[in-house]
Amino acid sequence: MISIDIVLLWLDLVGVFFFAVSGSLLAARKQFDIVGSVLLASIVSLGGGAIRDVVINAGPPVAFTNPVYLIPPLLAALLVYFLFSSVQRFTSLLTLFDAGGLALFCITGTLKALTSGMNPVAAILLGVTTAVGGGLLRDITANEIPTLFDARDIYALPAFVGAGLTTLLWHLGLFSGLTACLVAGIVFAFRVTAWRRSWYVPLAVRGWQRGGTGAGAISGARD
Amino acid sequence: MISIDIVLLWLDLVGVFFFAVSGSLLAARKQFDIVGSVLLASIVSLGGGAIRDVVINAGPPVAFTNPVYLIPPLLAALLVYFLFSSVQRFTSLLTLFDAGGLALFCITGTLKALTSGMNPVAAILLGVTTAVGGGLLRDITANEIPTLFDARDIYALPAFVGAGLTTLLWHLGLFSGLTACLVAGIVFAFRVTAWRRSWYVPLAVRGWQRGGTGAGAISGARD
Amino acid sequence: MISIDIVLLWLDLVGVFFFAVSGSLLAARKQFDIVGSVLLASIVSLGGGAIRDVVINAGPPVAFTNPVYLIPPLLAALLVYFLFSSVQRFTSLLTLFDAGGLALFCITGTLKALTSGMNPVAAILLGVTTAVGGGLLRDITANEIPTLFDARDIYALPAFVGAGLTTLLWHLGLFSGLTACLVAGIVFAFRVTAWRRSWYVPLAVRGWQRGGTGAGAISGARD
Repeated sequence: MISIDIVLLWLDLVGVFFFAVSGSLLAARKQFDIVGSVLLASIVSLGGGAIRDVVINAGPPVAFTNPVYLIPPLLAALLVYFLFSSVQRFTSLLTLFDAGGLALFCITGTLKALTSGMNPVAAILLGVTTAVGGGLLRDITANEIPTLFDARDIYALPAFVGAGLTTLLWHLGLFSGLTACLVAGIVFAFRVTAWRRSWYVPLAVRGWQRGGTGAGAISGARD
Repeated sequence: MISIDIVLLWLDLVGVFFFAVSGSLLAARKQFDIVGSVLLASIVSLGGGAIRDVVINAGPPVAFTNPVYLIPPLLAALLVYFLFSSVQRFTSLLTLFDAGGLALFCITGTLKALTSGMNPVAAILLGVTTAVGGGLLRDITANEIPTLFDARDIYALPAFVGAGLTTLLWHLGLFSGLTACLVAGIVFAFRVTAWRRSWYVPLAVRGWQRGGTGAGAISGARD
Repeated sequence: MISIDIVLLWLDLVGVFFFAVSGSLLAARKQFDIVGSVLLASIVSLGGGAIRDVVINAGPPVAFTNPVYLIPPLLAALLVYFLFSSVQRFTSLLTLFDAGGLALFCITGTLKALTSGMNPVAAILLGVTTAVGGGLLRDITANEIPTLFDARDIYALPAFVGAGLTTLLWHLGLFSGLTACLVAGIVFAFRVTAWRRSWYVPLAVRGWQRGGTGAGAISGARD
């Protein structure tokens, strides 16, 4: 039987890779060079986990101590360099890879918090922080308004759902590689469907109209 | 007699609430949705304290471990959602709530540093960092030039005054709930008066003129 | 004979001063006031080291505990205030001081990691993070696109070279005040030459053209 640790490491590495690709794609769209592509891929893919490790006081973040975590960002930058010269739909791809990272990181972040002895509420919060932290760093670093705050989009809710389900499964003793993949699938489907169907939640003030950014962006599906 | 710990917890929670309202107001002004409002309220109100706790190595920040700290941001987002649909003067309100948070956090941040055994200079610096850190995170996240650096405004000096007075009172053995409220009042009055009267300090280079943003913004009072 | 600790402290303080001047110069260019100048100088000069100390779990960052680290930012803000009123070429000066900070911080950051027992790869990564972290914070705080990601420039590679050489010298037992200055000279020369000659590396996607920002910025030398 496969141990939880191995499952966690693999989910984490795949999540790191997904986020790294989203970072390299943003670097490409912003006309950064190949070194900037590696750096932005590293910041987005390793930043969320670094915040998590610093918060739970787990010693130096794995990103610094375990060199295997450097492979995904390098791989992502190379992949984007060689394969995406003819790609037009950067935004769609960026959103899909970002959703993959989000789905996996809300699980691994929550689990790390639970196994280090935090209470359920704290574990959910830390899972969400891990999941949205890397993307937030990516958007702040590249001087963009963070996706996290895009009112035409749902980004944090899927991470809350994933962190909540992970905590529930853990306390019921049902967490395994299989149920982890199931939760990741739910989070990914929620995030991507919300994006394609342009689901949205009410604005920060009751009765305010959405505007400025175009009605089509709200009612219609996006590519 | 009320213990220092209880006074500190309440001052901290009220400060968290003030900063949270400023976050939700900025979210409203930037047309974020209700989830973004809760998140920005959380970042501004809990971010400064989280930086402080990570710096003094106090274990996981209270924001993650004590669920009571989640109530102010949720309350702030709800309040802004239901009460501010007809409000025009977001900027004034935002500044007032932000000043309230600043006044309380420079006290609680300094005290936490003093009680964890740091020297007076370090305690003042950490108090100021706690007080201005949340607002800085808020403005960076929302992709604005931080209020902290607005040359038409005085923002960091009141926090230094508050942290300095707190350190002085502590070392004289005069710190209590009463003197804490007094210091908070001084910091709040200094910050708000500087803002309404448009007090300012010299620019970063001697002999340079203020310009571009309008002379009226410097000499006249603002609403 | 001078101990490594003394060499390190001095290299660190000089690096802090260089970065602080770059912060005050950016504050001047962005029309911040004198308080904002001190704060931005502090953020850029002490931020990279604070990130390093938090990551290696070295207790509160020296910036908070050792008051001597407050002298360089104060000195830098005063210097810029009194001396630069007639200076036109802010960008050139900013780049030179920034390069000086980069050259010294990639050495001191790497050494701190090595002496706290990290492996060579982790030490190089932490050295680079220390060197580029302060400047990244400076540019994010001032709401600019980070120099680190400017595709017309080479910024991270010199830091990698410096961190790599430092690690090599350390493991060969050849690290001393003399070789440290040699490495700093190489990093500084690499960074400044790359900037003056407008060296660049390929963009993030193969076959893409540099454009928009002007061909002259790429092929010609800058002042």
